[in-house]
Amino acid sequence: MKIKGFIYCFVFAFSGLFQESVQGRPLLTSAPRPRRDETATFARWLVSQSSWGVLNTISDDWEGAPFGNVVSFSDGLPDKGKGIPYFYLTTLDPTARNALKDQRSSFTLSEHNLGTCGKADPEDPSCAKITIVGKLKLLEGTPDEVEFARTALFTKHPAMQSWPKNHNFQIFKLNIENIFMINWYGGPQPITVEQYLNAEMNEVAFLAHLTA
Amino acid sequence: MKIKGFIYCFVFAFSGLFQESVQGRPLLTSAPRPRRDETATFARWLVSQSSWGVLNTISDDWEGAPFGNVVSFSDGLPDKGKGIPYFYLTTLDPTARNALKDQRSSFTLSEHNLGTCGKADPEDPSCAKITIVGKLKLLEGTPDEVEFARTALFTKHPAMQSWPKNHNFQIFKLNIENIFMINWYGGPQPITVEQYLNAEMNEVAFLAHLTA
Repeated sequence: MKIKGFIYCFVFAFSGLFQESVQGRPLLTSAPRPRRDETATFARWLVSQSSWGVLNTISDDWEGAPFGNVVSFSDGLPDKGKGIPYFYLTTLDPTARNALKDQRSSFTLSEHNLGTCGKADPEDPSCAKITIVGKLKLLEGTPDEVEFARTALFTKHPAMQSWPKNHNFQIFKLNIENIFMINWYGGPQPITVEQYLNAEMNEVAFLAHLTA
Repeated sequence: MKIKGFIYCFVFAFSGLFQESVQGRPLLTSAPRPRRDETATFARWLVSQSSWGVLNTISDDWEGAPFGNVVSFSDGLPDKGKGIPYFYLTTLDPTARNALKDQRSSFTLSEHNLGTCGKADPEDPSCAKITIVGKLKLLEGTPDEVEFARTALFTKHPAMQSWPKNHNFQIFKLNIENIFMINWYGGPQPITVEQYLNAEMNEVAFLAHLTA
Protein backbone atom coordinates (compact mmCIF):
# COMPACT_ATOMS: atom_id res chain seq x y z
CA MET A 1 0.00 0.00 0.00
CA LYS A 2 2.84 2.38 0.75
CA ILE A 3 4.41 1.77 -2.64
CA LYS A 4 1.03 2.17 -4.34
CA GLY A 5 0.50 5.46 -2.49
CA PHE A 6 3.94 6.65 -3.51
CA ILE A 7 3.29 5.85 -7.17
CA TYR A 8 -0.01 7.74 -7.05
CA CYS A 9 1.74 10.76 -5.52
CA PHE A 10 4.48 10.66 -8.11
CA VAL A 11 2.13 10.29 -11.06
CA PHE A 12 -0.22 13.03 -9.93
CA ALA A 13 2.64 15.41 -9.12
CA PHE A 14 4.34 14.75 -12.46
CA SER A 15 1.08 15.13 -14.35
CA GLY A 16 0.34 18.45 -12.64
CA LEU A 17 3.79 19.80 -13.42
CA PHE A 18 3.57 18.77 -17.04
CA GLN A 19 0.16 20.26 -17.57
CA GLU A 20 1.14 23.51 -15.89
CA SER A 21 4.29 23.80 -17.94
CA VAL A 22 2.56 23.49 -21.30
CA GLN A 23 -0.16 25.91 -20.38
CA GLY A 24 1.54 28.57 -18.32
CA ARG A 25 -1.53 29.19 -16.21
CA PRO A 26 -3.08 27.43 -13.24
CA LEU A 27 -4.21 23.89 -13.88
CA LEU A 28 -7.98 23.72 -13.74
CA THR A 29 -8.30 19.96 -13.51
CA SER A 30 -8.08 17.70 -10.48
CA ALA A 31 -7.25 14.55 -12.47
CA PRO A 32 -4.74 14.14 -15.28
CA ARG A 33 -5.76 14.06 -18.93
CA PRO A 34 -6.40 10.44 -20.05
CA ARG A 35 -4.83 9.04 -23.18
CA ARG A 36 -6.72 10.30 -26.20
CA ASP A 37 -7.31 6.81 -27.59
CA GLU A 38 -9.17 5.79 -24.44
CA THR A 39 -12.07 7.69 -25.89
CA ALA A 40 -14.88 6.85 -23.46
CA THR A 41 -12.68 7.56 -20.43
CA PHE A 42 -11.48 10.74 -22.09
CA ALA A 43 -15.08 11.88 -22.66
CA ARG A 44 -15.99 11.17 -19.03
CA TRP A 45 -12.91 13.05 -17.84
CA LEU A 46 -13.80 16.08 -19.95
CA VAL A 47 -17.33 16.12 -18.57
CA SER A 48 -16.41 15.49 -14.95
CA GLN A 49 -13.67 18.12 -14.91
CA SER A 50 -15.77 20.87 -16.49
CA SER A 51 -17.97 23.19 -14.46
CA TRP A 52 -20.00 24.88 -17.19
CA GLY A 53 -21.00 24.50 -20.80
CA VAL A 54 -23.54 25.62 -23.37
CA LEU A 55 -26.95 23.97 -23.13
CA ASN A 56 -28.90 24.03 -26.35
CA THR A 57 -32.65 23.87 -26.82
CA ILE A 58 -35.17 24.62 -29.55
CA SER A 59 -36.27 28.21 -29.10
CA ASP A 60 -39.92 28.80 -28.48
CA ASP A 61 -39.41 32.56 -28.90
CA TRP A 62 -37.38 32.75 -32.11
CA GLU A 63 -38.91 30.61 -34.86
CA GLY A 64 -37.53 27.34 -33.52
CA ALA A 65 -33.94 28.52 -33.72
CA PRO A 66 -31.38 26.44 -31.83
CA PHE A 67 -30.78 28.46 -28.67
CA GLY A 68 -27.51 28.03 -26.73
CA ASN A 69 -27.24 29.20 -23.14
CA VAL A 70 -24.31 29.27 -20.73
CA VAL A 71 -25.11 27.11 -17.70
CA SER A 72 -23.31 25.48 -14.81
CA PHE A 73 -23.71 21.74 -14.31
CA SER A 74 -22.41 18.71 -12.48
CA ASP A 75 -22.26 14.98 -13.11
CA GLY A 76 -21.27 14.07 -9.55
CA LEU A 77 -18.89 14.79 -6.72
CA PRO A 78 -15.38 15.81 -7.84
CA ASP A 79 -13.70 12.88 -9.60
CA LYS A 80 -16.75 10.72 -8.88
CA GLY A 81 -19.02 11.82 -11.68
CA LYS A 82 -21.32 9.34 -13.41
CA GLY A 83 -21.31 11.12 -16.75
CA ILE A 84 -24.91 12.34 -16.73
CA PRO A 85 -25.16 16.14 -16.70
CA TYR A 86 -27.53 17.69 -14.15
CA PHE A 87 -28.53 21.36 -14.24
CA TYR A 88 -30.21 23.83 -11.89
CA LEU A 89 -32.54 25.93 -14.02
CA THR A 90 -35.39 28.37 -13.62
CA THR A 91 -38.25 28.93 -16.04
CA LEU A 92 -37.48 32.64 -15.76
CA ASP A 93 -34.78 31.68 -18.29
CA PRO A 94 -35.73 30.53 -21.82
CA THR A 95 -33.73 27.28 -21.71
CA ALA A 96 -35.94 25.60 -19.09
CA ARG A 97 -39.11 26.94 -20.75
CA ASN A 98 -37.97 25.61 -24.12
CA ALA A 99 -37.15 22.18 -22.69
CA LEU A 100 -40.58 21.85 -21.08
CA LYS A 101 -42.12 22.29 -24.56
CA ASP A 102 -39.54 20.39 -26.64
CA GLN A 103 -37.02 18.12 -24.93
CA ARG A 104 -34.59 17.91 -27.86
CA SER A 105 -31.29 19.26 -26.59
CA SER A 106 -27.52 19.11 -26.62
CA PHE A 107 -24.81 20.17 -24.19
CA THR A 108 -21.42 21.36 -25.41
CA LEU A 109 -18.09 21.59 -23.59
CA SER A 110 -14.59 22.63 -24.61
CA GLU A 111 -11.35 21.40 -23.09
CA HIS A 112 -10.11 24.95 -23.57
CA ASN A 113 -11.77 25.79 -20.25
CA LEU A 114 -9.57 23.33 -18.40
CA GLY A 115 -6.28 24.91 -19.40
CA THR A 116 -4.95 21.65 -20.84
CA CYS A 117 -4.96 22.58 -24.54
CA GLY A 118 -1.56 24.21 -24.53
CA LYS A 119 -1.31 26.66 -27.39
CA ALA A 120 -3.75 24.83 -29.67
CA ASP A 121 -6.44 26.96 -31.27
CA PRO A 122 -9.83 26.23 -29.62
CA GLU A 123 -11.13 24.87 -32.97
CA ASP A 124 -8.08 22.64 -33.50
CA PRO A 125 -9.03 18.95 -33.04
CA SER A 126 -6.18 18.49 -30.54
CA CYS A 127 -8.15 20.72 -28.14
CA ALA A 128 -10.97 18.35 -27.24
CA LYS A 129 -14.66 19.18 -27.48
CA ILE A 130 -17.74 17.17 -26.73
CA THR A 131 -21.42 17.58 -27.53
CA ILE A 132 -23.85 15.33 -25.70
CA VAL A 133 -27.12 15.03 -27.58
CA GLY A 134 -30.29 13.91 -25.84
CA LYS A 135 -33.51 14.92 -24.12
CA LEU A 136 -33.52 17.60 -21.43
CA LYS A 137 -36.03 16.71 -18.74
CA LEU A 138 -37.13 17.91 -15.35
CA LEU A 139 -35.57 15.40 -12.94
CA GLU A 140 -38.21 13.03 -11.68
CA GLY A 141 -35.95 10.18 -10.59
CA THR A 142 -35.80 8.05 -7.50
CA PRO A 143 -35.12 9.81 -4.17
CA ASP A 144 -31.56 8.48 -4.44
CA GLU A 145 -31.02 10.07 -7.84
CA VAL A 146 -32.53 13.36 -6.71
CA GLU A 147 -30.21 13.39 -3.71
CA PHE A 148 -27.22 12.45 -5.90
CA ALA A 149 -27.99 15.25 -8.37
CA ARG A 150 -28.57 17.86 -5.67
CA THR A 151 -25.33 16.99 -3.89
CA ALA A 152 -23.46 16.91 -7.20
CA LEU A 153 -24.68 20.40 -8.14
CA PHE A 154 -24.34 22.06 -4.74
CA THR A 155 -20.87 20.63 -4.13
CA LYS A 156 -19.48 21.80 -7.47
CA HIS A 157 -21.43 25.08 -7.37
CA PRO A 158 -21.88 26.15 -3.72
CA ALA A 159 -23.41 29.46 -4.82
CA MET A 160 -26.49 27.60 -6.07
CA GLN A 161 -27.65 27.05 -2.51
CA SER A 162 -28.24 30.76 -2.09
CA TRP A 163 -29.98 31.43 -5.39
CA PRO A 164 -33.38 33.10 -4.86
CA LYS A 165 -36.02 30.67 -3.65
CA ASN A 166 -38.79 32.55 -5.46
CA HIS A 167 -37.09 31.94 -8.82
CA ASN A 168 -38.16 28.33 -8.49
CA PHE A 169 -34.92 26.68 -9.63
CA GLN A 170 -35.39 23.01 -10.41
CA ILE A 171 -33.05 20.16 -11.30
CA PHE A 172 -32.99 19.09 -14.94
CA LYS A 173 -31.26 16.06 -16.40
CA LEU A 174 -29.92 15.37 -19.89
CA ASN A 175 -30.94 11.87 -20.97
CA ILE A 176 -28.06 10.95 -23.25
CA GLU A 177 -28.75 9.57 -26.74
CA ASN A 178 -25.63 10.37 -28.75
CA ILE A 179 -22.09 11.53 -28.06
CA PHE A 180 -20.07 13.65 -30.46
CA MET A 181 -16.47 14.06 -29.33
CA ILE A 182 -13.39 15.24 -31.15
CA ASN A 183 -10.08 14.96 -29.28
CA TRP A 184 -7.65 14.48 -32.16
CA TYR A 185 -7.41 14.71 -35.93
CA GLY A 186 -9.59 12.46 -38.06
CA GLY A 187 -13.14 13.42 -37.14
CA PRO A 188 -15.43 12.52 -34.25
CA GLN A 189 -14.58 9.47 -32.17
CA PRO A 190 -17.11 6.66 -32.21
CA ILE A 191 -18.42 6.31 -28.65
CA THR A 192 -21.64 4.56 -27.71
CA VAL A 193 -23.71 5.77 -24.78
CA GLU A 194 -23.07 2.44 -23.07
CA GLN A 195 -19.28 2.77 -23.46
CA TYR A 196 -19.48 6.31 -22.13
CA LEU A 197 -21.58 5.46 -19.07
CA ASN A 198 -19.51 2.38 -18.22
CA ALA A 199 -16.07 3.93 -18.69
CA GLU A 200 -13.70 3.25 -15.86
CA MET A 201 -12.99 6.42 -13.95
CA ASN A 202 -11.07 5.42 -10.85
CA GLU A 203 -7.50 6.34 -10.02
CA VAL A 204 -6.17 3.01 -11.21
CA ALA A 205 -7.53 3.72 -14.64
CA PHE A 206 -5.81 7.09 -14.71
CA LEU A 207 -2.59 5.51 -13.47
CA ALA A 208 -2.73 2.94 -16.24
CA HIS A 209 -3.25 5.63 -18.84
CA LEU A 210 -0.32 7.64 -17.66
CA THR A 211 2.17 4.83 -17.38
CA ALA A 212 1.12 2.71 -20.38
CA MET B 1 -2.06 64.89 -26.60
CA LYS B 2 0.55 64.07 -23.97
CA ILE B 3 -1.98 64.39 -21.17
CA LYS B 4 -4.51 62.31 -23.11
CA GLY B 5 -1.85 59.63 -23.67
CA PHE B 6 -0.97 59.67 -20.01
CA ILE B 7 -4.60 59.24 -18.99
CA TYR B 8 -4.99 56.31 -21.39
CA CYS B 9 -1.87 54.65 -19.96
CA PHE B 10 -3.07 55.17 -16.42
CA VAL B 11 -6.55 53.90 -17.08
CA PHE B 12 -5.39 50.84 -18.99
CA ALA B 13 -2.72 50.01 -16.41
CA PHE B 14 -5.14 50.45 -13.53
CA SER B 15 -7.78 48.41 -15.26
CA GLY B 16 -5.31 45.61 -15.95
CA LEU B 17 -4.13 45.53 -12.37
CA PHE B 18 -7.64 45.49 -11.02
CA GLN B 19 -8.77 42.71 -13.32
CA GLU B 20 -5.71 40.62 -12.57
CA SER B 21 -6.15 41.08 -8.85
CA VAL B 22 -9.75 39.90 -8.76
CA GLN B 23 -9.05 36.90 -10.93
CA GLY B 24 -5.64 35.70 -9.88
CA ARG B 25 -4.76 34.48 -13.35
CA PRO B 26 -3.55 36.18 -16.50
CA LEU B 27 -5.91 38.76 -17.92
CA LEU B 28 -7.33 37.49 -21.21
CA THR B 29 -8.70 40.80 -22.44
CA SER B 30 -6.96 43.62 -24.25
CA ALA B 31 -9.55 46.25 -23.33
CA PRO B 32 -11.13 46.92 -19.95
CA ARG B 33 -14.62 45.73 -19.08
CA PRO B 34 -17.21 48.42 -19.95
CA ARG B 35 -19.81 49.53 -17.45
CA ARG B 36 -22.57 46.99 -17.31
CA ASP B 37 -25.31 49.54 -17.95
CA GLU B 38 -23.73 50.46 -21.29
CA THR B 39 -25.32 47.30 -22.57
CA ALA B 40 -24.63 47.55 -26.32
CA THR B 41 -20.99 48.49 -25.75
CA PHE B 42 -20.70 45.72 -23.19
CA ALA B 43 -22.07 43.18 -25.67
CA ARG B 44 -19.63 44.33 -28.35
CA TRP B 45 -16.75 44.13 -25.88
CA LEU B 46 -17.70 40.59 -24.88
CA VAL B 47 -17.82 39.50 -28.52
CA SER B 48 -14.65 41.28 -29.64
CA GLN B 49 -12.60 40.01 -26.71
CA SER B 50 -13.66 36.38 -27.08
CA SER B 51 -11.86 33.94 -29.36
CA TRP B 52 -14.26 31.00 -29.35
CA GLY B 53 -17.84 30.08 -28.53
CA VAL B 54 -20.53 27.50 -29.18
CA LEU B 55 -22.23 27.69 -32.57
CA ASN B 56 -25.66 26.09 -32.70
CA THR B 57 -27.47 24.69 -35.70
CA ILE B 58 -30.43 22.39 -36.32
CA SER B 59 -29.05 18.88 -36.57
CA ASP B 60 -29.64 17.09 -39.80
CA ASP B 61 -28.36 13.84 -38.28
CA TRP B 62 -30.24 13.72 -34.98
CA GLU B 63 -33.95 14.36 -35.46
CA GLY B 64 -33.59 18.12 -35.72
CA ALA B 65 -31.95 18.42 -32.30
CA PRO B 66 -30.20 21.71 -31.54
CA PHE B 67 -26.52 20.90 -32.10
CA GLY B 68 -23.88 23.02 -30.35
CA ASN B 69 -20.29 22.93 -31.58
CA VAL B 70 -17.14 24.58 -30.23
CA VAL B 71 -15.72 26.92 -32.88
CA SER B 72 -13.24 29.76 -33.14
CA PHE B 73 -14.43 33.05 -34.61
CA SER B 74 -13.56 36.69 -35.12
CA ASP B 75 -15.49 39.91 -35.57
CA GLY B 76 -12.48 41.94 -36.67
CA LEU B 77 -8.93 42.92 -35.86
CA PRO B 78 -8.17 43.11 -32.12
CA ASP B 79 -10.16 45.96 -30.55
CA LYS B 80 -11.52 46.87 -33.99
CA GLY B 81 -14.30 44.33 -34.29
CA LYS B 82 -17.57 45.24 -35.99
CA GLY B 83 -19.71 42.87 -33.95
CA ILE B 84 -20.55 40.38 -36.71
CA PRO B 85 -19.14 36.89 -36.03
CA TYR B 86 -17.27 35.21 -38.89
CA PHE B 87 -16.29 31.53 -38.81
CA TYR B 88 -13.99 29.24 -40.77
CA LEU B 89 -15.83 25.96 -41.21
CA THR B 90 -15.58 22.78 -43.24
CA THR B 91 -18.47 20.60 -44.35
CA LEU B 92 -16.51 17.66 -42.94
CA ASP B 93 -18.02 18.96 -39.70
CA PRO B 94 -21.79 18.75 -39.07
CA THR B 95 -22.22 22.45 -38.22
CA ALA B 96 -21.47 23.73 -41.73
CA ARG B 97 -23.53 20.91 -43.29
CA ASN B 98 -26.48 21.74 -41.03
CA ALA B 99 -26.30 25.45 -41.86
CA LEU B 100 -26.34 24.81 -45.58
CA LYS B 101 -29.67 23.01 -45.11
CA ASP B 102 -31.21 25.19 -42.39
CA GLN B 103 -29.71 28.58 -41.62
CA ARG B 104 -31.36 29.01 -38.21
CA SER B 105 -28.55 29.39 -35.71
CA SER B 106 -27.24 30.98 -32.53
CA PHE B 107 -23.78 31.68 -31.17
CA THR B 108 -23.08 31.65 -27.43
CA LEU B 109 -20.22 33.15 -25.44
CA SER B 110 -19.37 33.33 -21.75
CA GLU B 111 -17.37 36.05 -20.04
CA HIS B 112 -15.93 33.26 -17.91
CA ASN B 113 -13.42 32.65 -20.72
CA LEU B 114 -12.00 36.14 -20.35
CA GLY B 115 -11.01 35.76 -16.71
CA THR B 116 -13.00 38.83 -15.66
CA CYS B 117 -15.76 37.12 -13.67
CA GLY B 118 -13.84 36.97 -10.42
CA LYS B 119 -15.23 34.23 -8.24
CA ALA B 120 -18.76 34.37 -9.66
CA ASP B 121 -20.30 31.06 -10.64
CA PRO B 122 -20.45 30.76 -14.45
CA GLU B 123 -24.27 30.68 -14.27
CA ASP B 124 -24.45 33.73 -11.98
CA PRO B 125 -25.84 36.75 -13.88
CA SER B 126 -22.86 38.86 -12.80
CA CYS B 127 -20.69 36.69 -15.08
CA ALA B 128 -21.90 37.92 -18.45
CA LYS B 129 -23.15 35.70 -21.26
CA ILE B 130 -24.46 36.48 -24.70
CA THR B 131 -26.34 34.50 -27.33
CA ILE B 132 -26.57 35.99 -30.79
CA VAL B 133 -29.49 34.54 -32.72
CA GLY B 134 -29.62 34.72 -36.50
CA LYS B 135 -28.97 32.99 -39.81
CA LEU B 136 -25.67 31.24 -40.46
CA LYS B 137 -24.68 31.70 -44.11
CA LEU B 138 -21.76 31.03 -46.36
CA LEU B 139 -20.12 34.43 -46.80
CA GLU B 140 -20.96 35.83 -50.20
CA GLY B 141 -20.32 39.50 -49.49
CA THR B 142 -18.47 42.20 -51.36
CA PRO B 143 -14.73 41.66 -51.96
CA ASP B 144 -14.15 44.17 -49.15
CA GLU B 145 -16.20 42.15 -46.67
CA VAL B 146 -14.54 38.89 -47.71
CA GLU B 147 -11.13 40.50 -47.18
CA PHE B 148 -12.23 41.96 -43.84
CA ALA B 149 -13.52 38.59 -42.63
CA ARG B 150 -10.45 36.69 -43.80
CA THR B 151 -8.06 39.14 -42.12
CA ALA B 152 -10.21 39.14 -38.97
CA LEU B 153 -10.10 35.35 -38.72
CA PHE B 154 -6.46 34.80 -39.67
CA THR B 155 -5.20 37.57 -37.38
CA LYS B 156 -7.05 36.26 -34.33
CA HIS B 157 -6.41 32.61 -35.23
CA PRO B 158 -3.09 32.36 -37.11
CA ALA B 159 -3.30 28.56 -37.08
CA MET B 160 -6.21 28.71 -39.53
CA GLN B 161 -3.84 29.61 -42.35
CA SER B 162 -2.27 26.17 -42.16
CA TRP B 163 -5.45 24.12 -41.89
CA PRO B 164 -5.62 21.44 -44.60
CA LYS B 165 -6.53 22.87 -48.02
CA ASN B 166 -8.35 19.69 -49.02
CA HIS B 167 -10.77 20.09 -46.12
CA ASN B 168 -12.30 22.98 -48.03
CA PHE B 169 -12.69 25.42 -45.15
CA GLN B 170 -14.97 28.33 -46.04
CA ILE B 171 -15.95 31.55 -44.31
CA PHE B 172 -19.41 31.66 -42.78
CA LYS B 173 -21.18 34.68 -41.34
CA LEU B 174 -23.89 34.99 -38.70
CA ASN B 175 -26.54 37.45 -39.87
CA ILE B 176 -27.75 38.84 -36.56
CA GLU B 177 -31.49 38.97 -35.82
CA ASN B 178 -31.72 38.97 -32.01
CA ILE B 179 -29.39 39.49 -29.08
CA PHE B 180 -29.84 37.81 -25.71
CA MET B 181 -27.39 39.11 -23.12
CA ILE B 182 -27.32 38.84 -19.36
CA ASN B 183 -24.63 40.81 -17.55
CA TRP B 184 -26.33 41.48 -14.22
CA TYR B 185 -29.33 40.47 -12.15
CA GLY B 186 -32.83 41.13 -13.49
CA GLY B 187 -32.98 39.13 -16.70
CA PRO B 188 -31.73 39.71 -20.24
CA GLN B 189 -30.84 43.25 -21.24
CA PRO B 190 -32.90 44.77 -24.03
CA ILE B 191 -30.51 45.42 -26.93
CA THR B 192 -31.61 45.95 -30.51
CA VAL B 193 -29.45 44.76 -33.39
CA GLU B 194 -29.07 48.40 -34.47
CA GLN B 195 -27.85 49.46 -31.01
CA TYR B 196 -25.41 46.56 -30.97
CA LEU B 197 -23.95 47.22 -34.42
CA ASN B 198 -23.66 50.95 -33.82
CA ALA B 199 -22.19 50.80 -30.31
CA GLU B 200 -19.17 53.00 -29.84
CA MET B 201 -16.07 50.90 -29.43
CA ASN B 202 -13.13 53.28 -29.51
CA GLU B 203 -10.77 54.02 -26.68
CA VAL B 204 -12.55 57.23 -25.77
CA ALA B 205 -15.69 55.25 -25.12
CA PHE B 206 -13.83 52.91 -22.82
CA LEU B 207 -12.17 55.83 -21.07
CA ALA B 208 -15.55 57.44 -20.50
CA HIS B 209 -16.95 54.22 -19.07
CA LEU B 210 -14.11 53.83 -16.66
CA THR B 211 -14.04 57.35 -15.36
CA ALA B 212 -17.76 58.15 -15.33
